[in-house]
Amino acid sequence: MRRISVTVLAVGSLIACGIAAAATTIPAAAVRTAEQLRDRALQDDTAYRIVSSLTTEVGPRMAGSDADLRAREWAVAKFKALGFDKVYTEPVTFPLWQRRSESGAIVAPFPQPLVLTALGYSPGTPRGGLTAQVVKFDSLDALKAADPASVRGKIVYIDYRMHREKDGHDYGKGSAVRTAGPPLAAAKGAAGYLLRSAGTDAHQRIAHTGVTGFRMGEKSIPAAALSSPDADQLNRVLAYGKPVTVKLDLDCGIVGEYTGANVIGEVTGRKYPDQVVAIGGHLDSWDPGTGAIDDGAGVAIAMAAAKLIHDLPQRPDRTIRVIAFANEEMGLWGGRAYADKHGDEVAKFQLGTESDFGAGPVWRMSASVKPSARDAIRQIANVLAPIGVAYDAKRPGGGGSDLSQMHAKGMAALSLTQDGTHYFDWHHTANDTLDKINPKELAQNVAVYAAFSYMAAQADGDFGSAPGAFADDGAGE
Amino acid sequence: MRRISVTVLAVGSLIACGIAAAATTIPAAAVRTAEQLRDRALQDDTAYRIVSSLTTEVGPRMAGSDADLRAREWAVAKFKALGFDKVYTEPVTFPLWQRRSESGAIVAPFPQPLVLTALGYSPGTPRGGLTAQVVKFDSLDALKAADPASVRGKIVYIDYRMHREKDGHDYGKGSAVRTAGPPLAAAKGAAGYLLRSAGTDAHQRIAHTGVTGFRMGEKSIPAAALSSPDADQLNRVLAYGKPVTVKLDLDCGIVGEYTGANVIGEVTGRKYPDQVVAIGGHLDSWDPGTGAIDDGAGVAIAMAAAKLIHDLPQRPDRTIRVIAFANEEMGLWGGRAYADKHGDEVAKFQLGTESDFGAGPVWRMSASVKPSARDAIRQIANVLAPIGVAYDAKRPGGGGSDLSQMHAKGMAALSLTQDGTHYFDWHHTANDTLDKINPKELAQNVAVYAAFSYMAAQADGDFGSAPGAFADDGAGE
Repeated sequence: MRRISVTVLAVGSLIACGIAAAATTIPAAAVRTAEQLRDRALQDDTAYRIVSSLTTEVGPRMAGSDADLRAREWAVAKFKALGFDKVYTEPVTFPLWQRRSESGAIVAPFPQPLVLTALGYSPGTPRGGLTAQVVKFDSLDALKAADPASVRGKIVYIDYRMHREKDGHDYGKGSAVRTAGPPLAAAKGAAGYLLRSAGTDAHQRIAHTGVTGFRMGEKSIPAAALSSPDADQLNRVLAYGKPVTVKLDLDCGIVGEYTGANVIGEVTGRKYPDQVVAIGGHLDSWDPGTGAIDDGAGVAIAMAAAKLIHDLPQRPDRTIRVIAFANEEMGLWGGRAYADKHGDEVAKFQLGTESDFGAGPVWRMSASVKPSARDAIRQIANVLAPIGVAYDAKRPGGGGSDLSQMHAKGMAALSLTQDGTHYFDWHHTANDTLDKINPKELAQNVAVYAAFSYMAAQADGDFGSAPGAFADDGAGE
Repeated sequence: MRRISVTVLAVGSLIACGIAAAATTIPAAAVRTAEQLRDRALQDDTAYRIVSSLTTEVGPRMAGSDADLRAREWAVAKFKALGFDKVYTEPVTFPLWQRRSESGAIVAPFPQPLVLTALGYSPGTPRGGLTAQVVKFDSLDALKAADPASVRGKIVYIDYRMHREKDGHDYGKGSAVRTAGPPLAAAKGAAGYLLRSAGTDAHQRIAHTGVTGFRMGEKSIPAAALSSPDADQLNRVLAYGKPVTVKLDLDCGIVGEYTGANVIGEVTGRKYPDQVVAIGGHLDSWDPGTGAIDDGAGVAIAMAAAKLIHDLPQRPDRTIRVIAFANEEMGLWGGRAYADKHGDEVAKFQLGTESDFGAGPVWRMSASVKPSARDAIRQIANVLAPIGVAYDAKRPGGGGSDLSQMHAKGMAALSLTQDGTHYFDWHHTANDTLDKINPKELAQNVAVYAAFSYMAAQADGDFGSAPGAFADDGAGE
């Protein structure tokens, strides 16, 4: 009943003025084609071949490394090989942080090595290492409450144990210990910083790297993550009640500036080439793994989805733009550069979202769109429901990691939530390798992206992108 | 029927000559006490506290390292703290192999680092590393069949994938690739050697070290194990059909000789102090982990079992001897030294076996004993059956790793097979840490060792130990 009245109102408005209040809908033919794309994607291994190619031929590709350039060359070549209509790059400049070597050890009372990894933007330790007493906190709040005198000159160690969750929400707490903890410890006069890795692989002797929240020009201290069994061991040693001394030997730091690039491929729209559906992933990865789940998968899902649309008998009405972002890992540098450059064209972005949460199946969709596009979102949801995607009409759509920056400018956006139960077992570690990807689950992602992108490209009407739209949708929280 | 007639025969013989053919039996009172020891062990956390102490206070303790001495000091102190009646050491001399650093990478066609670890007795690479083309084989047999011209100057790579088994029998194949492969490749003129780690953790980016079969004075070449995902990656790179070049940079090798020691603690027998039930584990571990399952657990199980017997109102009839062996990992050096020293007293070894297969529950018992002691073994089996141990009368008892050497001299021996389903996930890796031990399963092992050791110590009669006995039982196969 309500739905009918809205439609009537919309049609009436369309007749009256042709703008704004018109209900956005997906034509029936486009829905049928989207269903075909969805079903075809489930049988298609293009995404798996793409992520295998990237992780095998380039491997680890930390922003600013030699492999960063090779990754860009790979992406340009891959877009071209897939037949994209337009392939180009846009420069992204960021501080160049390098990891050269890292080691750590308990010095006293029970000398033994520790498995740890330096965090992004950590400065190196003095030559010969940093040796200091460890002071342990159970949470970031406990460190916030600590008297600076209790940490001065010491290595602050925060022991927060992340839990597995389907939506990965505990990473909120876990990553805060990694980002907010180091500058807080530095401000209180600590000499160094350690955390139990922000990861859910409780029994693997592999540390999780990731960026800190050190700000340029403010004080920074050597900061590293312990593997979870090493955190357990450090706890056991501390439990003897004797002073515990640890040595950190980190050779790393910011060495200058680097200009990489977002690499972009387009399937050009037939009717409205300047209106774009924006999808993508990020091309950079952390250095210990080969960046299969983070985020080779995202790049592959978006490329393969657009390729399926490319292979239709005719081009979609609007452009499908696939963006392989530069340096997401060290602070959304690619996404921010993109929004800086394209923010004032935000109204031309029909709808967008990025894949950057591994390769588990999408199980939930939510959207930040104008109210009169809500029915079109339901049409998309109906096409995705048979492959396990539940529509949550109450949550906003944040657009994913880098594209959150365009959403913040006013781009209508989806959230396509993947099953991340095991994502943080491997995230930012040497274990982020191709074997962690289930090809069938990857294909389900492609089905979701191909179907939604095509429907958005064919919609009669827009989803409400406009400068400043959705500022209060809560997606950034 | 058969059993009765044997008993009659045995009693008759005992009356006639008092030796040899007498059936060995366990007195009913000893069986009852063994049942109490078993039940007490299940509630006792001494073994867990011991292995926690060793792995926390000493940590990794590779034979000949600084930590080797600290481990011996720990063992002497622990035996004394537990109240053992006699604590002593016996020297063990072996070649000193050191690992200083190790790294590897694919150089061409797709440059990227590899996770690998040098194998025991591997020589180092030349300064600057060894760079050579890789030639892959699927099995040791395929390498055996290879024309030397096809491997000369190359890095031989054998890709054998181990499977999880409750009894771990696939380690037979897996370890052969690690031990026999390197000298075979060296003999054929290869420049280096790689294998997929002899481990069952298919998805962990952690390599399994272990000893090679290089013989002193014969040709050796740098040899290392790849983590399983790295072997997968190397396979993918090789599948492109281009020549694949790998660089190994191993700084390791034999630097001399070292004299460590077996550390021995005894609960002295009241009636026959010079007759011993021998149990134990090995004190050394590989260096990347803390040697919890290999073999802190074994040392702890034996110490805790003997401690329970020690705490009985009176000492057992025979001595319970716990041996913490030196340098098992690089070739049973402690076990061989022990057998060299004590082989001619083998008849005094009532029964023996060593725990060296992790901390999973014992599920099978078998024995190599004289026929007239078979009923006593059944009495032991009856006490162990309620805690999940099945008696297999057809298999031999090998005595475990180091004590296999005493069994080879003629010591009556058990095999107490643990559930090793996950043992090779962690074996010889950084992941061999305390968190892999389930305290309840560890306690079940103690129950088994305490009950069997006590019954063997109290037996009326022996189990057939004699020089050269059991030579044909098949235990060494």
